[in-house]
Amino acid sequence: MPSVSNKGLSMPQSPIRKLVPFAENAKKRGINVIHLNIGQPDIKTPQQALDAVKNNNLSVLEYSRTEGSEEFRTKIAKYYEKYDIRVSATDLIVTTGGSEALSFAMNTIADTNDEIIIPEPFYANYNGFATACGVTVVPVVSKLEDNFALPPIEEFEKLITPRTKAILICNPGNPTGYLYSKEEIEKLAALVKKHNIFLVADEVYREFTYDDKTHTSILKEEGLEEHAIVIDSVSKRYSMCGARIGYLVSKNKDFIATAMKFAQARLSPPTYAQIASEAALETPDSYFADVKTEYVARRNILIAELEKIEGIKIAKPQGAFYCIAELPIKDADHFAQWLLEEFNMDNETVMVAPAAGFYATEGLGKNQIRIAYVLDQKSLKRAVRILKEALKSYKG
Amino acid sequence: MPSVSNKGLSMPQSPIRKLVPFAENAKKRGINVIHLNIGQPDIKTPQQALDAVKNNNLSVLEYSRTEGSEEFRTKIAKYYEKYDIRVSATDLIVTTGGSEALSFAMNTIADTNDEIIIPEPFYANYNGFATACGVTVVPVVSKLEDNFALPPIEEFEKLITPRTKAILICNPGNPTGYLYSKEEIEKLAALVKKHNIFLVADEVYREFTYDDKTHTSILKEEGLEEHAIVIDSVSKRYSMCGARIGYLVSKNKDFIATAMKFAQARLSPPTYAQIASEAALETPDSYFADVKTEYVARRNILIAELEKIEGIKIAKPQGAFYCIAELPIKDADHFAQWLLEEFNMDNETVMVAPAAGFYATEGLGKNQIRIAYVLDQKSLKRAVRILKEALKSYKG
Ligand SMILES: Cc1ncc(COP(=O)(O)O)c(C=O)c1O
Ligand SMILES: Cc1ncc(COP(=O)(O)O)c(C=O)c1O
Repeated sequence: MPSVSNKGLSMPQSPIRKLVPFAENAKKRGINVIHLNIGQPDIKTPQQALDAVKNNNLSVLEYSRTEGSEEFRTKIAKYYEKYDIRVSATDLIVTTGGSEALSFAMNTIADTNDEIIIPEPFYANYNGFATACGVTVVPVVSKLEDNFALPPIEEFEKLITPRTKAILICNPGNPTGYLYSKEEIEKLAALVKKHNIFLVADEVYREFTYDDKTHTSILKEEGLEEHAIVIDSVSKRYSMCGARIGYLVSKNKDFIATAMKFAQARLSPPTYAQIASEAALETPDSYFADVKTEYVARRNILIAELEKIEGIKIAKPQGAFYCIAELPIKDADHFAQWLLEEFNMDNETVMVAPAAGFYATEGLGKNQIRIAYVLDQKSLKRAVRILKEALKSYKG
Repeated sequence: MPSVSNKGLSMPQSPIRKLVPFAENAKKRGINVIHLNIGQPDIKTPQQALDAVKNNNLSVLEYSRTEGSEEFRTKIAKYYEKYDIRVSATDLIVTTGGSEALSFAMNTIADTNDEIIIPEPFYANYNGFATACGVTVVPVVSKLEDNFALPPIEEFEKLITPRTKAILICNPGNPTGYLYSKEEIEKLAALVKKHNIFLVADEVYREFTYDDKTHTSILKEEGLEEHAIVIDSVSKRYSMCGARIGYLVSKNKDFIATAMKFAQARLSPPTYAQIASEAALETPDSYFADVKTEYVARRNILIAELEKIEGIKIAKPQGAFYCIAELPIKDADHFAQWLLEEFNMDNETVMVAPAAGFYATEGLGKNQIRIAYVLDQKSLKRAVRILKEALKSYKG
């Protein structure tokens, strides 16, 4: 039997993949599993996006332009203007989700064995895209005690080698919920300019910032134009993860021209999804205001309830909809499986994402879990109470 | 300014990309450009596929399952049954177009500098996916004189090295229109079994076979189960290229499990497109019968008209909707550009795809062009007449 590639063998799996069969078994046993593990918002997709697709009148579903239509990209550029970000339609490539934007970005800037520095914990699929491209992820530890703020800039600089092609950040962060300050972004900007490398910012959670904090896009940094690459996506913004539309944004013309070659090979992003996404750009500000109010309420309940658990440490999130908690246990992998296999409270249990999978450094995050607050407030409250009871009976 | 990757620099561009600005200029000068260069069918998408999307009632556009829903995959397995191909839902991954299936397949079977043998001329984007994966394409020349039949199997065997991971064929072929016979498939099957490598067949044009010839899927070869990987797509089959849905099919469990890891990193294929594609599976046979009748008529007109051109050689296509012609010229690149820049007949000209871009061997195919017959019969006839006149005035 022919064998698969080493690349394939070393492709990491999602931190929760192993748990899925246990969750399914629990459900079969009649246990209601509350999912604290997923990043799929429960918020309604904007009606105009749904309607645009329902009212489309295509009769031949053709390939779109590789980079997305001129009209769509012009409207996207206008969307950025609202945030004081000046980009034009030609600085943009429409991709199949932020996922594809990430994979094009890595392929465009890095060759096999090149290095990209990423503060950990980070979105686990960065590992997958890096492995697929043959790129080495070099982690810098950020700490729960600091709410996962940017590690000292010297920690980054120490790791820069001739193979380093970029620093990649996620802002606001999945899984940390941390929102980088303008000062932090400026430090990163100075560093990438000094070493002539790229700064890639995954800004897919741009709108999800709380407590009157505002988001600092790397696209606004003066003098960073040739270095800045932004990963964007409609998935979370408009609660339309299933569309599969994202954007790759940069003012570096060589970067965009080269990324376009990868885009051309796969022909085009999905047409219906572009119809929905173009219409979603008309979503009124009130939609985001409502969504924000809801997430803030959820976050506050989540944090308040978690703080009632003895021995817990929480990084207070200021953005996105994730939160990392350190539990008074040794092995969150084991605990998460135990929750699904052995525990229930009135026939209910919770599924959490063990955080070790968000770290590249072996051994880190073993007693941490990531909680996504994409559930209604009542379920969230119940979920944390279950967690609290579970920790009492867990012998780990 | 930070520089892009070598991989990015060496990513090939589509054979017609250079011509696009010349076509746009011609249009600006009021010239009607008849496109013989594209693979976007003009056939109407099946109504049930369009309707399924218009009638969807999603309110949250969620991620689908990474591999596509159980129901959808079960229906796809049923589709294969019609062709006497026995696969089950678990032998399938739904991908974002055949394009993504190709890229997953290469990543799953080959590491950097591994080799895949492909008969040339071949679908040009195979080069793009190979470059992105760091895989080396090793071409075997197939000849216009033989209608691009399978080259002698010894030619393949000669090229097999310890780095060879697979042979990749396209059946029926883009750009050749050649349909491999059962005997040819059996020779390939014996060879990959002997050398314990994979056989990847891009069968996206499966339905487009003419002259009562039938298609031989590698999935039907007994004993080939662990070696056979099929690339499939709804793009051409149902004239829904813009959906971006394809399938990766194999009975090799390791292969599917490993490909799933690449699929998980990008989360899911597009949801609306899956709704359309699932409904498209109900397309009545009469749709394909009509489409086939239309393509056969087009092909016959095309060939008949081309044969009136002095000094032309044509590989007679038996499948897909492409045809390669050798013209009495030296440099089809130059000729194609000249057609757009300098020539017109009653304010009309044609755009053709120079065939050199479909060959990996430098210097081959320079006097050949690929013609796609995805135009109505009248336009096709006019296009070939323009080509004929153009060749008379072309001084090369
Ligand atoms: C930080 C981050 N980046 C990128 C993505 C990719 O999302 P998509 O491909 O749906 O745009 C996600 C999805 O969860 C994410 O959390
Ligand atoms: C031979 C072949 N394979 C694969 C593809 C990819 O098509 P898609 O990604 O639209 O399924 C094409 C498209 O033209 C093709 O001609």
